[in-house]
Amino acid sequence: MPKVRAESELLQAIVLLFERLGITFSDVGIRVSSRKVLQAVLNMYSIPEHLFIEVCVIVDKLGKLTREEIEKELISTGLPDKAVQGIIEVLSLKSLPKLEEVLGSDVEAVADLKKLFSFAEQYGYADWICFDGSVVRGLAYYTGIVFEAFDRKGELRAICGGGRYNKLLSTFGSEDIPACGFGFGDAVIVELLKEKGLLPDLSRQIDDIVFPLDEELEGPASTVASSLRKKDRSADLVQDKRLKWVFKHPERINASRLILVGKSEWERAETLWFLSFI
Amino acid sequence: MPKVRAESELLQAIVLLFERLGITFSDVGIRVSSRKVLQAVLNMYSIPEHLFIEVCVIVDKLGKLTREEIEKELISTGLPDKAVQGIIEVLSLKSLPKLEEVLGSDVEAVADLKKLFSFAEQYGYADWICFDGSVVRGLAYYTGIVFEAFDRKGELRAICGGGRYNKLLSTFGSEDIPACGFGFGDAVIVELLKEKGLLPDLSRQIDDIVFPLDEELEGPASTVASSLRKKDRSADLVQDKRLKWVFKHPERINASRLILVGKSEWERAETLWFLSFI
Repeated sequence: MPKVRAESELLQAIVLLFERLGITFSDVGIRVSSRKVLQAVLNMYSIPEHLFIEVCVIVDKLGKLTREEIEKELISTGLPDKAVQGIIEVLSLKSLPKLEEVLGSDVEAVADLKKLFSFAEQYGYADWICFDGSVVRGLAYYTGIVFEAFDRKGELRAICGGGRYNKLLSTFGSEDIPACGFGFGDAVIVELLKEKGLLPDLSRQIDDIVFPLDEELEGPASTVASSLRKKDRSADLVQDKRLKWVFKHPERINASRLILVGKSEWERAETLWFLSFI
Repeated sequence: MPKVRAESELLQAIVLLFERLGITFSDVGIRVSSRKVLQAVLNMYSIPEHLFIEVCVIVDKLGKLTREEIEKELISTGLPDKAVQGIIEVLSLKSLPKLEEVLGSDVEAVADLKKLFSFAEQYGYADWICFDGSVVRGLAYYTGIVFEAFDRKGELRAICGGGRYNKLLSTFGSEDIPACGFGFGDAVIVELLKEKGLLPDLSRQIDDIVFPLDEELEGPASTVASSLRKKDRSADLVQDKRLKWVFKHPERINASRLILVGKSEWERAETLWFLSFI
């Protein structure tokens, strides 16, 4: 019984995030494959285990190198020609039924992926994902399902990537614990949101502008600003500006009040300020 | 006219943060001084400019080294004995009037600090700050006011620190722009909040637990979890557990619902689930 529940939950988390950001599956897709696909090809040709990682690293260069260069690198590892052709064939596959044709249905790689795609249907995110034999992820620690989110226009680097790494913990001296996860490229997602006009406006909103009418009133102006801030209003102290500039400033930054601290008002009663409501 | 408005605003931001976290001025204080204090001492003894940074770095070791060791290091720079004594004296000062006695009132360091402390009164955070001649901050780039927040029990490292660095930008090849700022030790503030019992409970709250009563129902269980999550409920899928464990689980984690996905219910109508309200 394939255990890809955790991977299917990760993919839903990613899709929910995209949806909450306003991104749809016509903007972004997630390419999915499994390290076990390459493993199955190597098994078919009885290639020794220690070549597996080396092959993964080479294959991950797809996109940077041409298919011919990849082929050359694979041959230089000493792989037999048939195995190299087998790898190259599998890398170009874009559909699960085709993969099943090539590898057969009793291979773990195929069973895992079919299960994952069936989960995707039931979660309701099948439109977001597609099988792609060329996804292997460069890092040595992946052991099963691997995936990468990409913009469908093909202009950006991978938006996020991850998969299963059941043997990662032993490389840090711990016992192995089955695990999977993913990493997000925060810069890439910002680029994508900008391009789609979806980047939220995070500019600071100033509620009140406080302006002392006289340099000797900068102390009282501090008191005024401080008491506003303690009431959770954001207050900006303005100094060394002409009155004309000050009067236009609230409108420019969309502040709701301008508070002028005047000498005689301040002296008459500490709580009496000149308030201008915009 | 001393321009310490920006520093006074930074200090208010720090104090407001502490107050919002529930920390009071009996837990935390902010030591304040100015790089100009040491500068004034060096000027009194006509010490060449290039020794200033060297002296600052030595003096910042106070607390790690004894006063005698500091003295030795200062002497080894070639400073005259009187200047070393002057520095040592100033480092031990804990009050602004004393500093004024030693340096005189027409020194910039004194004027800046007096202005800053008068602002502190007017903002209302004077109880939080104190003058302390031993604060210099180790980094070479500070040029004026320097400060450090500390726990009054003296058990933790500095909670935050900062000051004015008017010449920082030219070290990166830009023109100099007057600037000041501070950095916060996120680990230290967490320790402090833990100690005071003020750390907010950030544990994850699960609303719904979804459990398929049969392995073949894990697909429908995905559909249920997915539709709950789309309604912004946090849903946890549980599998491979005994029913007894599942029934106790919601109480253990304070979830509000347990949703069991049963075969006949699922077949009868896709929307009919067995709901258990806790």
